[in-house]
Formats: sequence, C-alpha cells, structure tokens
Amino acid sequence: MEDATPLNLPVWDDVVAAHARIKPHINRTHVLRSDYLDDLMGAELFFKCENFQEAGAFKARGACNAVFGLSDEQAKAGVATHSSGNHGLSLSYAAGRRGIPCTVVMPHTAPQAKKDQVRYYGGRIVECEPSTSSREAVFAGVLEETGAEFVHPYNDPRVIAGQGTCSKELIEQVEGLDAVIAPIGGGGMISGTCLTLSTVAPAVEIFAAEPEQADDAYRSFKAGHIIADDAPVTIADGLKVPLKERTWHFVSNFVTDIFTCSEDEIVDAMKLTWKRLRIVMEPSCAPPLATLLKNKDRFAGKRVGVIVTGGNVDLDTLPWMS
Amino acid sequence: MEDATPLNLPVWDDVVAAHARIKPHINRTHVLRSDYLDDLMGAELFFKCENFQEAGAFKARGACNAVFGLSDEQAKAGVATHSSGNHGLSLSYAAGRRGIPCTVVMPHTAPQAKKDQVRYYGGRIVECEPSTSSREAVFAGVLEETGAEFVHPYNDPRVIAGQGTCSKELIEQVEGLDAVIAPIGGGGMISGTCLTLSTVAPAVEIFAAEPEQADDAYRSFKAGHIIADDAPVTIADGLKVPLKERTWHFVSNFVTDIFTCSEDEIVDAMKLTWKRLRIVMEPSCAPPLATLLKNKDRFAGKRVGVIVTGGNVDLDTLPWMS
Repeated sequence: MEDATPLNLPVWDDVVAAHARIKPHINRTHVLRSDYLDDLMGAELFFKCENFQEAGAFKARGACNAVFGLSDEQAKAGVATHSSGNHGLSLSYAAGRRGIPCTVVMPHTAPQAKKDQVRYYGGRIVECEPSTSSREAVFAGVLEETGAEFVHPYNDPRVIAGQGTCSKELIEQVEGLDAVIAPIGGGGMISGTCLTLSTVAPAVEIFAAEPEQADDAYRSFKAGHIIADDAPVTIADGLKVPLKERTWHFVSNFVTDIFTCSEDEIVDAMKLTWKRLRIVMEPSCAPPLATLLKNKDRFAGKRVGVIVTGGNVDLDTLPWMS
Repeated sequence: MEDATPLNLPVWDDVVAAHARIKPHINRTHVLRSDYLDDLMGAELFFKCENFQEAGAFKARGACNAVFGLSDEQAKAGVATHSSGNHGLSLSYAAGRRGIPCTVVMPHTAPQAKKDQVRYYGGRIVECEPSTSSREAVFAGVLEETGAEFVHPYNDPRVIAGQGTCSKELIEQVEGLDAVIAPIGGGGMISGTCLTLSTVAPAVEIFAAEPEQADDAYRSFKAGHIIADDAPVTIADGLKVPLKERTWHFVSNFVTDIFTCSEDEIVDAMKLTWKRLRIVMEPSCAPPLATLLKNKDRFAGKRVGVIVTGGNVDLDTLPWMS
C-alpha cells in the first residue's frame, strides 16, 4: 500500500543542495514587470520567467536535480519518465547534459513543439493515449525494458526540491512579497514553492491556479483528500495530471487557496501577457494572471510573485487564431 | 541648405546625461541567451531585450531624453512627431509621464496595436499616407496648428543620445563583446550605438541589418552618400524610413558593414526567436539574427550583442500564419 510507506519528503536542506547542484545547468531567470498590468490589477506583479530556461520551463530545475544527483552506477541505465511535455523535455535536456540515455512516455496528443524538443536534446519518445491510465501502463513496460531510473514529473522528492529553487531565487530577487501564485497540475512547482516559502518566508501566502476544466486540485483542496480525474480536457495541457501523496502533503498543509478559471479566461490572460510583457508563454502558465484578475480585491496593493512556468508553444496553432 | 547648417551632433557626455535623466522612466532591460541559437551560429549571442521597455521598444530612451530635457516653458505646448509606430508611442509614453500633450502623425497602415498604445498613453494620432512625402506634408500642418516641440524619430541629437544608453548598458552587462548588431531604419539606434561604442569600446565592431526590400541604408553605405526611397514595402514596418544627415554621420563614420535579408528570412528569424528565446519581438527586430545566420563565418567564435529593438506586434496577424 502506497499510503503505508514513509513519504520521504524533501526538506529545506534538499532545496539548498539542489540549487548548488543545478546552478551550472539552469538559468537564474529574470523577473519582469509591467506598469500596465500593475494598473489593471491594482497590485504590484513580479513575473518570474521560467519560460527563459534553456528547455523552456521550470521543470529543468527538478530534472537536473534528479539527474545530477545520481551516482555514476545509477546513471548508467539512464532515466525515464512519463510527462505531458515539459518534464519530458527537461529530463531529456538534463540527461543530455550528463550524457546518459532518457526515455519519455508522452501522449500522442502532446504539442509537436514539445516532442521535437525532447528529440533535439537526445531523448527517445514512446507514445501513449492521453489518459493517466494509458500512460501508466505504457510506462511500466518502458521501465521493465530499460532498467532506467524513474524520475516522476512531480511526485519525487528530488524533483520537488529542485522546483523549490525557483521561489528561493524569487525571494532573493524581490523584497517584501506578500504572496506567490503558480499554476497547479500535479503540484510539483507548488510543492517546491511551499517547501521554500514555509521555511524561509512563512509570511508569504501561497496561491495555486487551475483550469475549471481540470479542477481536481481545487476539488481535492476543498474536500480534504486527493480527487483524481482520468482525462480532463483543457487547453492548459500541462495541468491535466492529478495530485499525488507528496504534493498533496504540501498543498494541503501550506497553500492558502486555489482559484479556478475558464478556458476563455486562460486564452485572454495568455494573450494579455504576450502583448504586455512581450514574452511567449504557454496556456498552462495563464491561470495565475487569469485568476488574479478575477480576485483583484483579495490582492489590492499587494506585492505578488507570479511564476511563469513555461514557454514551449506550437507557434502555428495559437489559441486566439481561428 | 540643410548641408550648410552645423550638424549639432550629440557627444558622449550627452549619453551620460541622458542615462541619468531617463533612468526613472525606462527599464534597464535584460540580456537573454540561448544555447540553441549559440550552437546554430557557432558564436555567443547576447540579446539586449528592448522589447521589455514598458512601451515595448528602445525608442522610449530617446523620447524620454527629449521630453524630460525640455524646460517647463518649452514643454507647455507639448511635443509632436511623425513615426511608423514605436517612436510615436514611446513619445506618447514619455509625454504622458511628464503630463504634457503629444501629437503623432502615423501612416494609416501602421499596426493597430501601435495605434492603440499611442492612445493608451494619452497621445493624439493624425493619420497620413504610408509615404515619406505624405507624412512630411501632414506633419507640417500639425506643427503649425499646435506649436509643439518637434521630436524627430531619429535625426535629433537628443534622441540619438538617448538611444546611446542602450549599448552603454549592454557593455556594462556583457564583458568582452566583439561586435554589436542592430536593425537599421532611419539609423537612430545605430547612431546611438556608434556614439557610445566609438567612445568607450572602440574595438567593438558595429553592424547594421536591413531588409532587402528597404535597403536604402545599405545602398547609401556602399555609395558613400544618402540614398532615400519614398515608400519601400517590407514586413519590417519600423525600417522603412531613410537616413538623415545626423544618422548618416554616424553610419558613414563608425559602421563596419551593413547586411541585408529577404522577407522570408525576416519571418524565419522572427519565428526562431519567439521559439527559442520565448520573447515576442517585431518583424523589424529580426534582420540582425537573419543576417547573422547568413554570415556565420564572419562571426565564428565571437561574442555578439544583438539589439532586440521592440515587441509591439498585432498578435492576431502573425506573418507565419496563413
């Protein structure tokens, strides 16, 4: 029984060690601001641009921490994962930098840009159906075949500790934050954020944002236990996966609230960000701004960190183009 | 005769004064890198992201320098200009911050995003035909009507000194640059770059990049005198205007070479930048990367600064979408 094993949760020292380990392999990403968006919100927004990672997403942090933490013996058989996209290409990026094999199980519906990038970094793709059940079945076969080290996209203490380096940088870069908000899918970024902020900046409130059409984390949070959907449909393809026991630990203990938004609100916030910050970010990054704009009163006058999680987009199929 | 009057050229002290004057009103923009693009080029590229200015373009530098350098008496009647876009909205931004009127003469074909932003900052738009001759005629009427201070988009010593602050920051941010490349339209950014680098980093080579379909600067450079076209047709709408005597001074004296590229090469380089740097930049910013990629041998192993001039794009009409 999964619930009977110890959770083996990462702690703050793991975040500090992760940051030292991954520094040669990740970017200390810039924080962007917009007077226009601040005026619109009536608050000060600080956008931590993880889309500026070489592999285009914060997932490089957790992936590099896992890959570069392996012993030479462990690393020989390579790494493997299942991922709706950015974790897969980030693990491929990390494995490529270490020179070890990487296999990624991806839904065949994943954006072509993400598939191309996994292969560019040297990773091998094995396709599955776009459901949790199919992905897990196909992946079991891959692990048996390769003997590779499984690096789960989020329910892995090495990955959570790696993601915690993002808000570690953010609070070094921006003084006096009142709140931080990030999208929530499986909960890896939010868990790392909780781990870091609850330790070194416990006064900072932590919010998560989620599509209404994939609101399993919201419903879990309100119900007090994990609720998982098998195959939600949303444009925010990075946010379809369910919470697992380690991320649930952090979400249930440290998140102040979870907000949701519609598909139209996601597209509007995405386009607004492209227009005003002049950055390319994914639909999966848009729920934080979309939900902030629906909750202006809650944040009036506050200093809010917004984690822009990734920027790997199929530029030929933008959601506001007919 | 224009040629008989003193050129009243800006000098290095004007750049230093401009930087101090405009600092409260501009962003010290970030420099982005991409391992992918470095590998593709066989060189180290440093992208100075002027698209991250609040008004979306480097033009905020020269515009703020001109507007905030006016005496209170001079400022009363406001400022006016003609501009294919970014100078107009940047002047409107600067005037808005000082609280003085601003009139912008723009071709009716200018991108809607740029028109909207001029008005957002409080500027008034008077439309003209998309030709130099029409623009100059309409503008003469505006000056007579308003008595406003004319801030030319590039052939103005205050503007050139302001644009010079961009490469001043760049060489503070990046050590050991071998070359800097920027797009060339009227030559304001290139002139400011020449002024700064020729003074404080004279070993750095300066290159300009231009669309083949608006290659008046290239032909001027090769001929040794200004050649002006009236209404060139290119997707790089910010690069259609001709050199004038002050910018010609800097271009003819300090530019190492001017490169040109086709419309398809502009679109490809624009899309490549969006994909790999994950930034939104205009077609007018793409000629530097497009021409670097055509001249790889010339830059092999070099450290090259690339000035990304602006990011105000109509997101509904991207050039690679049919």
